[in-house]
Amino acid sequence: MLDHTHAADAVSWIESANIQGVDFPIQNLPYCAFQNNDTVARLGVGIGDQILDLSACAQAGLLSALPDSIVQTLQQSTMNAFMSLNRAAWRQTRHHFFSMLVSEGPQADQTIKFRSEVLVAQADVSLVMPMDIGDFTDYECSHHHAVRMRKIMSGTSKPLANGFYLPRAYHGRASSVVVSGEPIYLPLGQIEEEKEIPAYKPSEKFDYELELGIIIGAGNKRGHPIAIDDAEDNIFGFCLVNDWSARDIQKWERLPLGPFLGKSHATSMSPWIVTLEALAPFRAPQTHPGADWPEPLEYLSSDRNRAEGALDVAIDVYLSSEKMRENDDEPHKNSSNRLLDVHWTISQIVAQHTSGGCNLRPGDLIGSGTISGPAPHESACLYELSEGGKTTFNLPNGEIRSFLQVGDEVTFRGASIKEGYPRIGFGEVVGRVLPPVGSK
Amino acid sequence: MLDHTHAADAVSWIESANIQGVDFPIQNLPYCAFQNNDTVARLGVGIGDQILDLSACAQAGLLSALPDSIVQTLQQSTMNAFMSLNRAAWRQTRHHFFSMLVSEGPQADQTIKFRSEVLVAQADVSLVMPMDIGDFTDYECSHHHAVRMRKIMSGTSKPLANGFYLPRAYHGRASSVVVSGEPIYLPLGQIEEEKEIPAYKPSEKFDYELELGIIIGAGNKRGHPIAIDDAEDNIFGFCLVNDWSARDIQKWERLPLGPFLGKSHATSMSPWIVTLEALAPFRAPQTHPGADWPEPLEYLSSDRNRAEGALDVAIDVYLSSEKMRENDDEPHKNSSNRLLDVHWTISQIVAQHTSGGCNLRPGDLIGSGTISGPAPHESACLYELSEGGKTTFNLPNGEIRSFLQVGDEVTFRGASIKEGYPRIGFGEVVGRVLPPVGSK
Repeated sequence: MLDHTHAADAVSWIESANIQGVDFPIQNLPYCAFQNNDTVARLGVGIGDQILDLSACAQAGLLSALPDSIVQTLQQSTMNAFMSLNRAAWRQTRHHFFSMLVSEGPQADQTIKFRSEVLVAQADVSLVMPMDIGDFTDYECSHHHAVRMRKIMSGTSKPLANGFYLPRAYHGRASSVVVSGEPIYLPLGQIEEEKEIPAYKPSEKFDYELELGIIIGAGNKRGHPIAIDDAEDNIFGFCLVNDWSARDIQKWERLPLGPFLGKSHATSMSPWIVTLEALAPFRAPQTHPGADWPEPLEYLSSDRNRAEGALDVAIDVYLSSEKMRENDDEPHKNSSNRLLDVHWTISQIVAQHTSGGCNLRPGDLIGSGTISGPAPHESACLYELSEGGKTTFNLPNGEIRSFLQVGDEVTFRGASIKEGYPRIGFGEVVGRVLPPVGSK
Repeated sequence: MLDHTHAADAVSWIESANIQGVDFPIQNLPYCAFQNNDTVARLGVGIGDQILDLSACAQAGLLSALPDSIVQTLQQSTMNAFMSLNRAAWRQTRHHFFSMLVSEGPQADQTIKFRSEVLVAQADVSLVMPMDIGDFTDYECSHHHAVRMRKIMSGTSKPLANGFYLPRAYHGRASSVVVSGEPIYLPLGQIEEEKEIPAYKPSEKFDYELELGIIIGAGNKRGHPIAIDDAEDNIFGFCLVNDWSARDIQKWERLPLGPFLGKSHATSMSPWIVTLEALAPFRAPQTHPGADWPEPLEYLSSDRNRAEGALDVAIDVYLSSEKMRENDDEPHKNSSNRLLDVHWTISQIVAQHTSGGCNLRPGDLIGSGTISGPAPHESACLYELSEGGKTTFNLPNGEIRSFLQVGDEVTFRGASIKEGYPRIGFGEVVGRVLPPVGSK
C-alpha cells in the first residue's frame, strides 16, 4: 500500500539520507540491532549513514505517540517481539519514524532537539544479528537455478515434475546463521575420491549462493495453514542471504535426504531488515520461466498474487581475492541478478511452507533459493557459472577461479530501483573464507 | 562410568520407585519440566510415580550441597541452562539427587522432612517440553531401514554408497516438535494423483517413525568439530521420538532436496530425559549390519567407540484405533525394536554433525532415525511394514491398516534392560491423529 512515506519528494533533516542513490533514504527505514560499547544490543533504524537508537528515543520520550505495547518491543535486544505484532502496528511505527526523520514537522523538531542522544553513526557501531532465528528454511525458487544444478549434479536435462507445482525447500540450520562480516571457515567433509569411496578433507568446491531472506512476522499455529492472500501479513521484511555451499560435500551426502553438512557450517545474512512496507512501490506481476508453465493449484493461486505477488530487487555479487585486497583492487562484479527472474512469490513460499500444518514463528528466516536468471551468466552461484568446475573464469588481476579459495571475500549488494521512486537499498552481506579450524 | 548410583541393590524411601519393573527406579533419575496450576513450568526429577520438584528443593535448602552455579540452572523453566554445563556437573547433581532419594542417609533424612513440599505425583501435573530446541536434526542410522525405504521409494535394491561411510541426516523442523500427548493433525499436502500431476489433499499414507532422541549438552563453537571421543561429553541425555511422516507428500516433494513438509507438520517427543549417566550399565560394542562393512574414516573411528559406543535400548510400538479405545481394548503391539540394530553410534552422530564446522547448542534434538531391525517385521514404521502400502495388517479387532487413520493413537515405550541391573525406563511418547484443521 503506497502512502506519504513512499513519496519521492520526501527528504530528511539528516543530510546523508538525501544523497542520490543512498541505501537508506527516508522512504526505506530498515531495522537493525547494533552494539556500541554496551554488552547488550539495541534496536535501531537506518537513515543515511546514521542509526536512530530506539531505546534512546524511548528514553527521550520521542515514542510517546506510539502505544506502550509497541514501544516495549522496540527496547529489546532483538526484533522478535516487534516482529510478533501485526501489519497495522508495523505501519503505525513506520509512519512515526517517518514523522521523526522527515525534514519538517513537530515530531521532527522534537527529534532534532535530542539528535545527539538518539543518533549514532553506523561507522561507530557493530551490527549484530537482528533476531533470534527459530528455524531457517531454504527454498529453491528459481527454475533456472534448479535446471542447471540438476544438469550438473545428475546429468539430466529433464526438470523434476514437482518443481512445476511447488516451490521446493529443505530445512536449514539455524545455529550457524551469522551476520555479515563473521568469518566463514572452509568446511571439511566427506568427499568422493575414488568411485564410491570418500576421504575427509577440506572442500575443494566451495561456493556462495545469492538469496533473498524472508523474515517471518506473527506466523501461525501448528496445524493451521496460512492462506495465500494472508501470507504477506505474516512477512515482516527481507535481508540478503549467502547460503555458503560446499558442492563436493553436498554431492556425496545429498541422496536421499538432501543438503546437510555441505550447507550447515555457515549461512550469512545482511544486518538490515528492509520491511515489506518499504518495498510497496516495487511490486510486480508474478513471472513465469516459460509460456507452458502450468497453473498453480488453488492453495497457491490468487488474483492478487498473479497481479502483484513479485518484488523487483536487483542484487550484485562481488568477489575479491586476498591478492586483490593487498593491491587495493576494486572487488570484481561477478554477476548481476534480479529477483524477478525467480518464479515463485513470497506469498507462495509462505502458503506452501504452512500448507501441511507446519508453524512459522516470529523471526524465522526463509531463503528464496539462489536467484539465478535465464542466461548462464546470470547464475547466482559458482557451481552454475563454472558448470560444476569444468570451466574457469579470471579475476581482473589474472587470478583463476572455478570455486572460492581461502582468502576470497564475497559481497552481495542489493536494492529496489524504479523510475520515480528513491532507491531502497538492502545494505550488504560480506563474508571472507578462512582456513578450516582444527578439532575442538 | 559405573558408580554407586547404578548399584542394583539401591532402593529409595519412595516405595513406588522400588516396584519391580518400574520405569523410574532410583538408578534412573530422569529430568522433566512440569506444570501444575502455575503458568511457569518447573524442572523435576522422576522417581517412581512421583516428581522431585527442583525449585521446591532449592527453596527448602535441600540443594545447598551443590554449587550455586548448578542450583540456579535447576530453577529455570527449561533444562537448557543445566544442559549447557558439563559432565562433571551433571554427575555431581545426579549423585546429590541419589543421596536425597536413597533409602537412608543424612540427605535422605532431610528430604523426607520436606516430602510434602518437594514431591508431586506425576498423575497430578502436566509434563511440558523440557527444553527449547534450537535445532532439530534427523538421522537415518539404521541400514535396514534405509535399504527397505530405498527399495520401496526408488525401486532399487542397491544401497547408496554414502551410507557405508557416514550416518546420513537432514535438518528437521524445530518449531513443530511437541511433547507427548499433543494433538497430531493429519497433514495436507501435494500428492501425485496422475503421472507427474499432483492434488492438494490430506495424506493417505500417514506414518509413524520410532526413533531415539539425542539431546545435546554444551555443544561446540561454529567451525570447531567435536572429536569422536569428546562426543559423549556433549550429549546430555535421551528421549523417545515419533517422527510422524506423510509418505505420499514425502514421495512427491523429496527430490532433490529431501524430506520437508512430509515431516515438518509435527514431531513428538517423550517428556522425560534419561541421562547418559543412567545408561552406563547398558553400553555395548558397535554393531554392524554385515561382515563386509567398511572401516569408518578416521574422524568417525575410535577404540572406545568400537568397544562401547552402542547403547542397548528396547522400544515397543503400540497402536490403538478409536474403535479399540471405545471397546476398552488393549493397545496392539505393532513391533518390538532394539537400538542395537542401528549401526551408527551416538558418538559418530555427533562427530559427523560437527565435522563440517556446524555448531550444536544446548538442548538441540537429534533423532537417531527409524530403529528398524534386520527382519521385515522389525521395521519401526508402517511404510516398511506395509511395503509402501502394498500389504495390510489386522488390528486385533479385525480392523485393517496399511497406514494410520484419523483417530489412531501411537505409543512408544522404551527401556534399557540387562541382567543384574534395574530396568531404566524412558516413559512413553503418545500421539493421536486428528483430522486436518482448516485454514487460519
